[in-house]
This record gives sequence, structure tokens and C-alpha cells, in this order.
Amino acid sequence: MSGPVVVAFSGGLDTSFLVPYLAERLGRPVITVTVDTGGLSEEAREDLSRRSRALGAVAHRTVEARPAFFQETLRFLIYGNVRRGHVYPLCVGAERTLQARKVAEVAREVGASAVAHGSTAAGNDQVRFEVALRVLAPGVEVLAPIRDEGFTRAQETAFLRERGHEVSEERAAYSINRGLWGCTIGGRETLDTVDPLPEEAWVLTRGAFDDLRPPLEVRIGFREGVPTSLDRKEMDPVPLIEALDALAAPRGIGRGIHLGDTIFGLKGRVAFEAPAATVILEAHRELEKLVLTARQQRLKDQVAALYGDWVHEALALEPACRDAEALLQSSQDRVTGEVRMRMWAGRMEVLGVSSPFSLKAASSGTYGEAAGEWTGADARGFARMLAIPAMLHARAGTAAGATGGSERGGEAP
Amino acid sequence: MSGPVVVAFSGGLDTSFLVPYLAERLGRPVITVTVDTGGLSEEAREDLSRRSRALGAVAHRTVEARPAFFQETLRFLIYGNVRRGHVYPLCVGAERTLQARKVAEVAREVGASAVAHGSTAAGNDQVRFEVALRVLAPGVEVLAPIRDEGFTRAQETAFLRERGHEVSEERAAYSINRGLWGCTIGGRETLDTVDPLPEEAWVLTRGAFDDLRPPLEVRIGFREGVPTSLDRKEMDPVPLIEALDALAAPRGIGRGIHLGDTIFGLKGRVAFEAPAATVILEAHRELEKLVLTARQQRLKDQVAALYGDWVHEALALEPACRDAEALLQSSQDRVTGEVRMRMWAGRMEVLGVSSPFSLKAASSGTYGEAAGEWTGADARGFARMLAIPAMLHARAGTAAGATGGSERGGEAP
Amino acid sequence: MSGPVVVAFSGGLDTSFLVPYLAERLGRPVITVTVDTGGLSEEAREDLSRRSRALGAVAHRTVEARPAFFQETLRFLIYGNVRRGHVYPLCVGAERTLQARKVAEVAREVGASAVAHGSTAAGNDQVRFEVALRVLAPGVEVLAPIRDEGFTRAQETAFLRERGHEVSEERAAYSINRGLWGCTIGGRETLDTVDPLPEEAWVLTRGAFDDLRPPLEVRIGFREGVPTSLDRKEMDPVPLIEALDALAAPRGIGRGIHLGDTIFGLKGRVAFEAPAATVILEAHRELEKLVLTARQQRLKDQVAALYGDWVHEALALEPACRDAEALLQSSQDRVTGEVRMRMWAGRMEVLGVSSPFSLKAASSGTYGEAAGEWTGADARGFARMLAIPAMLHARAGTAAGATGGSERGGEAP
Amino acid sequence: MSGPVVVAFSGGLDTSFLVPYLAERLGRPVITVTVDTGGLSEEAREDLSRRSRALGAVAHRTVEARPAFFQETLRFLIYGNVRRGHVYPLCVGAERTLQARKVAEVAREVGASAVAHGSTAAGNDQVRFEVALRVLAPGVEVLAPIRDEGFTRAQETAFLRERGHEVSEERAAYSINRGLWGCTIGGRETLDTVDPLPEEAWVLTRGAFDDLRPPLEVRIGFREGVPTSLDRKEMDPVPLIEALDALAAPRGIGRGIHLGDTIFGLKGRVAFEAPAATVILEAHRELEKLVLTARQQRLKDQVAALYGDWVHEALALEPACRDAEALLQSSQDRVTGEVRMRMWAGRMEVLGVSSPFSLKAASSGTYGEAAGEWTGADARGFARMLAIPAMLHARAGTAAGATGGSERGGEAP
Repeated sequence: MSGPVVVAFSGGLDTSFLVPYLAERLGRPVITVTVDTGGLSEEAREDLSRRSRALGAVAHRTVEARPAFFQETLRFLIYGNVRRGHVYPLCVGAERTLQARKVAEVAREVGASAVAHGSTAAGNDQVRFEVALRVLAPGVEVLAPIRDEGFTRAQETAFLRERGHEVSEERAAYSINRGLWGCTIGGRETLDTVDPLPEEAWVLTRGAFDDLRPPLEVRIGFREGVPTSLDRKEMDPVPLIEALDALAAPRGIGRGIHLGDTIFGLKGRVAFEAPAATVILEAHRELEKLVLTARQQRLKDQVAALYGDWVHEALALEPACRDAEALLQSSQDRVTGEVRMRMWAGRMEVLGVSSPFSLKAASSGTYGEAAGEWTGADARGFARMLAIPAMLHARAGTAAGATGGSERGGEAP
Repeated sequence: MSGPVVVAFSGGLDTSFLVPYLAERLGRPVITVTVDTGGLSEEAREDLSRRSRALGAVAHRTVEARPAFFQETLRFLIYGNVRRGHVYPLCVGAERTLQARKVAEVAREVGASAVAHGSTAAGNDQVRFEVALRVLAPGVEVLAPIRDEGFTRAQETAFLRERGHEVSEERAAYSINRGLWGCTIGGRETLDTVDPLPEEAWVLTRGAFDDLRPPLEVRIGFREGVPTSLDRKEMDPVPLIEALDALAAPRGIGRGIHLGDTIFGLKGRVAFEAPAATVILEAHRELEKLVLTARQQRLKDQVAALYGDWVHEALALEPACRDAEALLQSSQDRVTGEVRMRMWAGRMEVLGVSSPFSLKAASSGTYGEAAGEWTGADARGFARMLAIPAMLHARAGTAAGATGGSERGGEAP
Repeated sequence: MSGPVVVAFSGGLDTSFLVPYLAERLGRPVITVTVDTGGLSEEAREDLSRRSRALGAVAHRTVEARPAFFQETLRFLIYGNVRRGHVYPLCVGAERTLQARKVAEVAREVGASAVAHGSTAAGNDQVRFEVALRVLAPGVEVLAPIRDEGFTRAQETAFLRERGHEVSEERAAYSINRGLWGCTIGGRETLDTVDPLPEEAWVLTRGAFDDLRPPLEVRIGFREGVPTSLDRKEMDPVPLIEALDALAAPRGIGRGIHLGDTIFGLKGRVAFEAPAATVILEAHRELEKLVLTARQQRLKDQVAALYGDWVHEALALEPACRDAEALLQSSQDRVTGEVRMRMWAGRMEVLGVSSPFSLKAASSGTYGEAAGEWTGADARGFARMLAIPAMLHARAGTAAGATGGSERGGEAP
Repeated sequence: MSGPVVVAFSGGLDTSFLVPYLAERLGRPVITVTVDTGGLSEEAREDLSRRSRALGAVAHRTVEARPAFFQETLRFLIYGNVRRGHVYPLCVGAERTLQARKVAEVAREVGASAVAHGSTAAGNDQVRFEVALRVLAPGVEVLAPIRDEGFTRAQETAFLRERGHEVSEERAAYSINRGLWGCTIGGRETLDTVDPLPEEAWVLTRGAFDDLRPPLEVRIGFREGVPTSLDRKEMDPVPLIEALDALAAPRGIGRGIHLGDTIFGLKGRVAFEAPAATVILEAHRELEKLVLTARQQRLKDQVAALYGDWVHEALALEPACRDAEALLQSSQDRVTGEVRMRMWAGRMEVLGVSSPFSLKAASSGTYGEAAGEWTGADARGFARMLAIPAMLHARAGTAAGATGGSERGGEAP
């Protein structure tokens, strides 16, 4: 092994441990990389850099990846109205592949022979990193010492303290994961399925229901499926999401608990807060209802269900995702317009929706029939023809029944 | 034509008109049938009977069909978590096929040569009635004079008044359709897509946000997918739904506006209130998340999407629905357990869920890994194997790229 | 009504009748249009032109549409491996929308107020023409006198003879429909489902099994999903299809009988011969198996099933088809390579397939394992993790069973 | 570890090695189990028993599992018309779960502490055994020494010879796997994708094209989806399959090469011969086309695609398979009737199909229209309504285009 080791660095206990541990164990210089896909303040970024050096890294890189995260991942999740289990907007997890890619780029650049991530054996992230790095950095060794050598948090703490590195005394009661598309919270309650989180454990929406704010109306503008304006002010997607979070969180929007399946097929439960994501997904879907035909929506839904699963389940680099994205992209052609929403006390309503491509406006007046789009006879003809398969089925059942056919066949459902 | 004419009777202007009109036009006795699939008080039933006789019907039948409606239709909509456009619980429409069946039964019983329904050319109901009657009453003529002869409401009113029948002076501002699974409201605002309904137009949840009631916690118990208890009191499904409506409506649960596609492919918009349906569907899906594997849920979702469309779009008698129901039924085997919900101000939260078949409880402790279900090496092996297809794809692209292959092939997404 | 009437003209009895009939009935000049989507010789084209004039048309247009047919329709059917009922390559029907479009273009150009087609009430074509013309020629009236006024063949014959037009004495025993993608044959046997066609009724493959030709090996080359070479000779798709037909038909390839569902939901049966289409579809799918991942194939299959149905069932203009085409197009990125086929006596074998993007070649050697792609431990880890959902399910069933759960739940399947 | 070790025994080199190896290594008695799921003669069974004892097993069990294999697996593959990659009838692989179950039953019965299988790290079978045994034998250790300790064939041979056990001198050029549903053949050619198998490598159909047999007509009768008669002779499914194999194999039916994806996502290629399976699957699908509605077929196809993948990919115990089977079972209600097939020189034709539930016979005469099922006006009405979504879409595009909308939106495809 030659060249430095690159560590994907979040500043938590696990990745902090990796820096001195790998430097000692492998005798190679360690370079840390933090890929910012949202949820980091400027201060936090600087803190990470300082902490990395203190731990002995020879260099630290911060990669601004929020716009790329939107462009490569989030916009497709919006196009596909992706919510896992019909509720959870992939708050965290979707960014792992992009993070792995950026880490792999740094590894190539610095001639690293290995990259390391701090995942344990329990969760989804190890799979996402492992799969992505294997695909994107074919010649580079992937290390996950905490998983593979089974370090406990106590062992990591002891190792760090022995070397004079500070580790905060107590573990936080809740583990929080925060990014551009939302925040997840795990703790005692989420280890089981019977109790909700206590109010004080929430991060973005804490106290939203104690002191109700007045309802707020917002207008979200979309252009070809991408949110491009907030209250008629044009904005880039990343600042738009951040601004919408600031409006929706204090009104308790986007709070939920997701009970779902890990990549390994275990049941997992996690609390989440995704104020902006929730508002945007709801608004987007409503706009689609106005401008897409029923068949377009059904087709998209089918493809997006697979796509969302693949992205969440470590398969964002599977080429089938590119094919799905082509369909999703095509479907957004006319998803341009404005959605009015009202947000209040954990409740979000769509007030109205408009688009130059409105299929509602394209039908003449209330009833196409009155306007001569069709006649009663046309409607009758349609209905009569639509009955044919079930009518023949009933008739065939009766005929066969007379000569001893299946009993179930001939009866009404 | 011999024998009486049977009219599917709701007591509204259209079906009221049909009674004397068909009696005169065809010179045959008219028998009215009201199939109660929910939303009718005892008083309303009696009123319909009186009104029918006053209009000249020789007989009126009221058919209690709520338990059959649950058993034949609603339970499958629950099993399938069916909501059209991801929001609308098929509040009205799903009962039409059952109503047609009951009307057809009466027609057979009384030797009717024709059955009539009051649908116009504009909506979905004409299609539902026409298809169902054609299948279920093969020898009987189906009449829809209002659609086929193009009567206007003014003409109908004049016809009735000429014959001394009372017609209320003004048309209600909103047309309301009410049944066991919810209520729909159409009016000026729903003719376009830009404005919500005014507060006073809502029926079941009117004023729910003016004077907030305290949050209410309820426990819904399910047995094999069917809601069987409310706050641990065992109840039959129909009274359970009615009781839950009484709790959820004043808290503003289940109110929404559905923008969707009619059977004809036109865009339509309708307001709806489905308090109990919304709570039950949410609770049921959460319980499924605890007891079904991920593959079971994906498979069900696919089948239920088609099933829900078919039921809504007049195809409930299509034999494919029977096949879908067999799958849905099979999937409910273990959907037994309890869901705790909190309802408040239009917001509904799942607090927790439990089941003797919990797949969460079946994994040992928090992390299966710690408990010896798997090792870090197993997890690593899984992730490494999972990477193979995308890894080979990347490699094939690189190889081909070197000898002049497709440009897109070899690059990262 | 002003301007001429444009008739979609095939030269058969029905469309021949339309020319003098519409001229007389409407008192407007008639212009005939024949859109060539394959299966017409130069002679046949000229014949149609002469016949049109003889029937009284003021002008006749022949539109060469074979390249457009390939570009707009057939290539997507190839990308999607579309065969209805898993056997029938949409030999006829897929071209109707293109034909309608060309007819609509002529209608616009000549300022026609109406277009007429010769369909009867029985089949799919009336629906295809009607839907396409309504979408593509919104201001133009669509006439289908044979369907709408119920003319019989005898009436049409009499009408034509009265006006001195020749009509051949007897109806052919089999009605044949021929185009670039194949040929369909209907007759006495296809009215029922019990007997095959007699040998003499086949058109392209007649006698192929009487005097067996030696097996023939061909190599089909594809570039991004499009067949571009035959036996290593580069060819445009249309001549390639025609050349392949000439090789495959005498060997009895592509003969079949399709029992399926009409757009109206009736069962229909039709014999077909699609030599080139059958070879190309088989070769294309085999090549895809080499270069696409499993997930890409599954995703495509799902989308193509819907797409094929829509194209066949008159919905080629549905915007969802454009979205499906975007996915299909994306999936063809690497479908470049060569397929060796052997054809003989109705039997077609894939001998081998090769591609610069081969995913088989991308795995090192026979067994990736031997080559260090993975270890026994990786494979074991994968398998152990894959077992988790069913293992938890079995365990949950046992646990619940012990305390009185569902009987089915806990047992092996 | 206590109790004996149970070895799943096929008599090949790998499982022969396991018997003395495990006896020595673990110091435990070894019991061998051969689960017969087809393809074994009486002689072969006895041979296996002798060989097992000679290798030192304390006992050998042969489990007759052919009827169970049909009942639990094959009938569902028939119901679902399952062919992987549209060609391969899961000739081998589908029986592994049943074999694992029978082995687990023996293990329970004899109080075994471990079961062993002879799979290597390369293929699908290790995954199938591992998953099934983990689910079905939760307390029992699963051993796969050849995979986990990486034995080579040479090492195994040496080990056996040192202990005086006979091992045949040379490895067969082709490895053959044979069962009730067909036979697979792997060898030099299948390691790559460019060449077919030489004629002498085929097992069941060898020489079928050298000396052509006359075409043979057979009649297959089905009752509720199960093949129950051959040429009108009632037979149980297992002997029926065996008899049909004897007729179809000499005519070269069911020979093919399958290029597909292993469970690990690698490309694999294997030759197969499945004479009876191919005839039965083809006949069954044709019968379904006569008695199922189009929607039933589409729904089944979707579910069966997933089901077939799961069964092949080691997930037969996944509870979602039970749900899929419920749908497939329901769909077979009327799949009763007779199919006439002709088989000759690798070619199989459906001559005709009949059923008491025929939906073709249920439509009156040729053209329902002539028989009054519908009128030209009904058909016209249907077509006009069907056009609505695309018509509105075109109109909306034009409207928006006028004010600067998307360019793609408004144009024809």
C-alpha cells in the first residue's frame, strides 16, 4: 500500500477515531474529506477542519456539493414524488453516493491507495458507501474498520483519550442526521414501535404546537418540474429549499416517523423532519395532476417506485436508474406552473394550482358535453363498450355453468 | 316491453323526474329502489319512501347494503390502502356497482323489463351504472333518459311542477354526495383549480379549525386487515366507521380536495371529507409496515394501484378484480394488531403500532449484528456482491470506451 | 362544409366505395391519400392512383412513409421487444397513427373540411383512425360512413356497379393486410379458435415446409438498438427489413396465430407472418441480455408492456408514450453488437452474441470468485443477509403461533 | 456440536467428498439425503444409496419429492407462464428450496446439529440452500465447506483417493443437471457467448434434426390451470410431464440457450432442454388467452414476472410469494380446456384451443355488432371518448405554445 488514506469525515466519534487509528495502523498519512450536502453551517465546516487537523490528518478538504446534490439526485426525487413508505422523503441516505463520488475524486487526485468510512455493520450507510466506492474507485481499497474489526464506542473513546483527544463525556440521547432534504432522529423510542418521540427530541419543529403561529400561505413556482420560485421570487433550488425550511419548520410541517425496511430487510424506525421537502413534494404532485394525463401519472408512479427504492437501497449507480431518470425527465416537460399552499400547525393544504399547460383549462367549460366535446350517445357508447369483457365473462360462466363448469366462475363477485 | 320499470332512486331532482316521466312515457308501473350504502338517516330513508310514492311509484324498496358494502368493497380498499391520486379514499363511486347489483336483483324479482338511472352525460356514475347493469342484468334494458334525451334541470323542474310535484326553489350552492366511506362536495370553486372551498361549504368538518378541540388519542385494532375495535371495544366495521367519523370529523381529519381524472380522461376537481376512512387507511398501512416484508408491500402496492383504478373506473366486475382481491386477502393474514393515533386540528399522527406478528420484535434486540444474527463480514459480503452489476457496467463502459464505444456508457451518472 | 373531402385510400371495396359515395352525398371534390408504410410494390402504388381517378377522385396522393414508420414507431417496438400476447409483433395496426397523421397533413394542405376512413364497426382500425384524427386534425370532421350508416359489402358492390365501376366477382377467401412489419391473414378458421389455417392460405411462408431449404446463418448488427447491418453489410433499416424478409420467409420463420383481445375487449384471432420482425426482435432481445443489467431489463419490460398495449390500442398519441420512449431510448445506449442466428424450417436459433459492451466479458474469467472479484465469505454473507426477511417472518409466525396467532402464518409454504 | 451431520447428497464429486471429509473433520456420523425432484432412474437412486454407504455415511435417505415439487412449485410456474428471460423454464433451481426443506426435515428428525451442502462460491445454488436452510432450520448450523474452505476439485479427488474411494479419471466435458422440469448443460461454449453447443453435447434432444421424425399432434387437457390429460388420457401431472418429455424430446422441442443474470448479478449462459415444460407452458398460455380477460392477463404477467424472479433467485420462502400464488391460483379458475399442438423439428405450433369458458364463443357470432352487441354509434362513441386525454394534451400545448410554452409540448410525436 502506498499513498495516503482518504477518510470520509463527519466529525462524529466513529470518523474521529479513524484518523489516528488508520495513521497508526497503516503508517500512512490521512487526508479527511467532508462532502457538504446540506445541514452544515459555515462554523461547523471550520470546526470540522480544525478537528481533523487536531486528530492528526495531514490535510482536510470540504467539498461544496449541495448544488450537485440537487441536480443529480433531489430533482429526480421530486420528479418522481419519491417518499419511502408513502411518507419519508429520503431525508438522509440519498446523498451517500454523491459523497462517495466526491471522496473517490479526492482519492484519485491525491493518489490514495485506500478510502475509509466510519460505518458500522448495522445500518444502510455501509452498503451505500461500499457499493458506490467499489463502482467509482475500482482500484482503491475500501476500509471500514469499525464494522470489520468490530470496535465499540467505548473502545473508540478510550483510544482517542489515550492519545489526548477530547471526547465529550456523554452520548447524546438522540442521534441526529441532517442534510439538505431533511433531518432524521433516532433514540430510545425508535428502537421499538410503540411510542412516539418526546417533544424535546425534535430538532427543526420543536415546540411548533406549543405556541401556534398563524397560518402561512406560500406560492411555489415550478419550471419543468424544478421548484424555481417562492412567493414569486425566483430562486435557485438550494436557497429555495433552505428558505422554505425556515418558513415551514416553525409551523410543524414535515414531521413524521418512518417505519420501514433496511437494505438488509430488517424493520427500522426513525423520526424525521423534512419541512421543505414535504411542501415541495406535495406541491409538485398537485401540479402534475393538472398537467399530466392519467396514464402519464400511472407510468411515472410505477417507475418512480422502483427508482426511489434503488436510490435509497444503495443502487443509485445501477444503470437502470439512468433509464428511469430519462422517463422522469421526459414527464416533466410541462410541469410548469404555480401551487398555492397553506401551512399551519402540522397541517398543509393545497389551496389551488395553475399552469399554462392546464388540462383542466383545455376542456371547454365545465362539462365538455355541454360544449360539444361529446354527446350523451358518445358517453353511452363508451360505457357500453367498456362493459364487454366482464359481460362476456359473465356469459361464458353461465354457459359453462349449465354444463357443469366451475362454480365460482358464473356468480357475481 | 312488459313488466314494471325499476328506477335507482336517490330522491334528487334527476331521479325524482324519472318516476313520473317514465310512468307516462312508457306507460308502465315504476318501482323505485334506494340502496343504502351509508350516509342516510332513518328519517331520510322514510322521506325517500314517501317522496317516491308521491311521485307516483307503485312501490319503493330500501335495501340495507352497508354491511355488504364493507364486505365486498371497502375491506379490499383498506387491504390495498387505496387512495386515488394518493389522497382521495374513493369516498363515492365505489358503491355504484353494489347499488347496480341490488337494483338488478329487484328488477329480476319483480320481472322488470327495464331499469333506469338518473345519470347525466358528464360524470363517472353513468359509466359505472351502465357497465354494471349490462353485466349483471343481461336481459334488461338500461335507460338513462336524462343523458340520452338531454333533459336540463330547468326542463325537469318544469315537468315536475306541471304535474303538481314540489321542487325546491333554488339549487343548493354545493352538490353533496354522502356515503359510508365519506362525502364529496362540488361547487363553484371546484369547477376551476385555483381556489379552495369556503369554510361554510364543508359538511362534516365545518368549523373544525375555528374552535380547536383538544387532541384525541384513539386505538384502532385490526384483525387480518379488518378494523375490529375502537379504543379496545370490539365493533362491527360499519358502526366502527360511523363512530370514528363522529370522533375525527370535529377535529378536521380527512378533509381534502382531489384533482384527478374522470373515467373519460377529463380533469375533475372535487372536495371531500373522509374522516374515518382517512384514519383507518393511515392506521392500516402503518400496521402493514410492521408485519409485512418489503417485497409484500411492493407487490401489494402494484396490484392495489390497478385495483383501485378499476374499482373507481367502473370495472369492479372485471374478473381481474377478483384475482387482485385474492392477493390482497392473502397479504392480510398477519395484519392483526393495534395502532395508536392522535388527531388534532386536521393533523393525524401515528403514535405507535404493535402486533403479535411484529417483524421488528422478531429481530433480536436493536442490532441483529450485536445479537449474532449477522457479522460485519456478512454485511460486507452482501454489500460487495450488491455492487457487482454496476461495477461490471462501469468496467464494460471503460473497456468499450478505450476502443471507441458510446461516450455516455463509460462515465459516472 | 367547404373544401374537399380527403379519403384514406387502400383500394379495397370499402374505401373504393367511399370515393363516389362521398362525392355524391356531400357534393364535394374527393382527394384520396395512400400512405405507404410497407407492403406495396411500385406497381400496386400506380394501380391505386389509377383506380382512385377512375372512381372519380379529383386527385390522389401517395405518401412514402416507410422510413418515418421505422423512425417513429418500429424502432421503439424493437427497443421494447414488443410482441402482443408474447407472440405477435404488431404486424399491422401500429402504422395507423402515422397514416392518420399523413392524411391530416394532406387535409390541412388542401383545406379539407372532412376526412373519411373506410373502417367498419367491428375492428380496431376505426378506433385508431378516430382517435388519431381527433387529436391531429382538431378542426376537421371525421367521417366513417360504412360504420356510421351501416353499409354492407353487398350494398357497396351494388352502388359501385350501378355507377359502372368494376368490382371483382367473389370475395377472396382470406383477407390479407400487409405492411413493413408483417402480414395478417383472416378467414374462416380464424373466426373460431379450434383450427389452424390451411397451408395454401399463408402468404409469405406458403410451402416453406414442403421442400425444406438448408439452414441459413445470418448475422444481424445493431447500433444503439437499431438493426444496422445484415451479414456485416451496413443497411438502412427499411431495406434491411425487406432483405431479411426475403431470407426468412422461405424458411418459414415468423409464422403464427395470434389469439388476443381487441380494443373493445372481444377475443379475436388472426394468422400472421412476420419473418424479419421475428428475427430482429429475437436478436435484439438476446443482445440486450448481454449488455443490460437485470434491473434494466426488468424495468424496460414493465414499461414496454404498457407501451406496446398503448400503441396497439389506438393510444400512440397519448403523451405517456413519449415518456416511455424516453426510457426505452436511454436503455439502448449500449445495445450495440452482433447476433448470429440460424433459421430453418420454422425454427430460429440464436447461435451467439457479442458486443463491445458485453457484461459477460467484463467479469474476469469464468468465475469472478477465482479471479478475486469476491470470496466465499462474501457470497456466504450475501446469502445470509438475503435470508433475513423470510427468517424474521418465520420467527414472528412461530412466536405469535405460540400465543394463538394465525395458523397459516407460522408454517412453511 | 452434537448429533449427526446431514449432507444433501447428489453423488457428484463435491457431495461425495463431503461425506468422509465431514465425518473426519467433525468426528460426527454423517447421514446423506437425496431428494428426488425428477431425473433420477430407480437404478440411479440405488446407486446413490450404495455410494453413500461406501463413502462412510451411517445412513442414506431417498425422499420422493416429485409430486410435492409439482404441487408446491411447478404448478405455480405454469399458472404464471414463468420463463426467465422469456425463454428459460427454470429447469433447475426451482427445486432447491423443496430439497432444503426435505433435508431440514430429516435433520430435525435425526436430531442433527448441522446440515451441509456441496455448493461452491460461484453459483446460485449456494444462495438457494443457504437462504432456505436459514429459514427452515433456524437452530441448525449450515455448512458449505467447499465454498468456505475453498477446496478445488483436484484437492477433493486427492482426498477421496487417499481414502480408497474411486473417482472417475476425467471430468466430463459438459456438466449436466437434470430434473423433472428439464435439464441444463454447461461446458466450454457456455463460458463465452459467441458459440452454440455442439450437437453431441445435448442430452435429451441429441440428433433430433439429423433424422427428422414426422410431425406429431398432441392434445393437452388442463383443469384449473393444471395439465391433466395427454391425448385425452387423464394422467397425474408427474407422469404426464414424463410422457410428454418422451414425445417432444426426439422432435427437438424445448432446446435453447439461456443468457441471463445470476443472483449475484453476473452474466451466465447455460444450455437447456425442457421438452415437456416448453409444450405445457405454450399450451397453457394459449388456453389462458381464450378464457381470461385482457386485464387478467396483464395483471398476472406483472405478478408472475416478480414471482418467477423470486423463485429463481432463492426467495421462494419470501411471504410475498404466497401472496402472488393466491393471485395466480385465483386466475386459474376457468383455465380448463384443451389445446392441440403440433411438434416437429424444433418447431411447436398451437393448432387450436377450446374451453367451456371460451370468451370467444361468448361473443355472438363473428361480429358482435352484427349480432346487436353494439352499434356503430357505440363504437364511434367509444373511440371519440378514448381520444379525450391526448386531445386535451394537444390543445393545452397549443394554447401554452401561443404564449411561449415548452416547444416539445405542442407537437405531434
